[in-house]
Amino acid sequence: MSRHLFYRLSLALLLAGSLSVQAAPSDDADIRTLLNGQAAAWNRGDIDSFMQGYWKNDGLRFASGDSVTTGWQATLDRYKQRYSDRAAMGTLSFTELSVEPLGDDAALVFGHWSLARDSDRPHGLFTLLLRKMPDGWKITRDHTSAAAP
Amino acid sequence: MSRHLFYRLSLALLLAGSLSVQAAPSDDADIRTLLNGQAAAWNRGDIDSFMQGYWKNDGLRFASGDSVTTGWQATLDRYKQRYSDRAAMGTLSFTELSVEPLGDDAALVFGHWSLARDSDRPHGLFTLLLRKMPDGWKITRDHTSAAAP
Repeated sequence: MSRHLFYRLSLALLLAGSLSVQAAPSDDADIRTLLNGQAAAWNRGDIDSFMQGYWKNDGLRFASGDSVTTGWQATLDRYKQRYSDRAAMGTLSFTELSVEPLGDDAALVFGHWSLARDSDRPHGLFTLLLRKMPDGWKITRDHTSAAAP
Repeated sequence: MSRHLFYRLSLALLLAGSLSVQAAPSDDADIRTLLNGQAAAWNRGDIDSFMQGYWKNDGLRFASGDSVTTGWQATLDRYKQRYSDRAAMGTLSFTELSVEPLGDDAALVFGHWSLARDSDRPHGLFTLLLRKMPDGWKITRDHTSAAAP
């Protein structure tokens, strides 16, 4: 190998390495943007846009309390049934977000949710698995728990 | 490359491929053995052995309802405080276990838990992240939720 070619190869590897290191912060930012976008959609009463953060597939798993809902459509139906008007939806906040990458195409996200409503303020925790799909990061598993009322 | 060497290399790759495919069922079995061992330890009143299934590290994350406990020792203390005698511990069952591998050294586990006690039968769901450590699979993140009493 000529010295010239050696330096060009080394430079290429160096660039590839720094790009792969920078991928994680970009994924982290993309995931936070997705979740903040979900909260913003919720807070303008738009459950359909909120649901775009979820994997649109029958394999979606949504667990809450003691019940598991399977599939995107069933999860949408559940949200629309439980939050049938703006008063029930309240104002949603996601706080204390933590994004933990698991390889290049998966991440576990932890956070705290709270709903500010006229009559109450339910709140709790969530654990999400997101997968990087061709159209971006999507929530494929959601486990939500609530504080005892 | 000689044809002989080509066949030997192909055979080696084939073997390596089939070994990596077989790794998953073994991990699945190891993880189920760990969780079943935890339930068995619980049901003989042995919280210390139960806790061996968790990552013995200050980074352990245990979330339940609306509260997060950080670290192995704090998680042990929480269990011992909430389940201070055999009557409170009851008989623990894990059912509907689902193990989803995430790469070679991580897996997400979903399941249902229930406690049979004299006075009540609390039950709910859990989502666990396990990582493959030098001493075997360990729970590093636990999110547990309960049905409304």
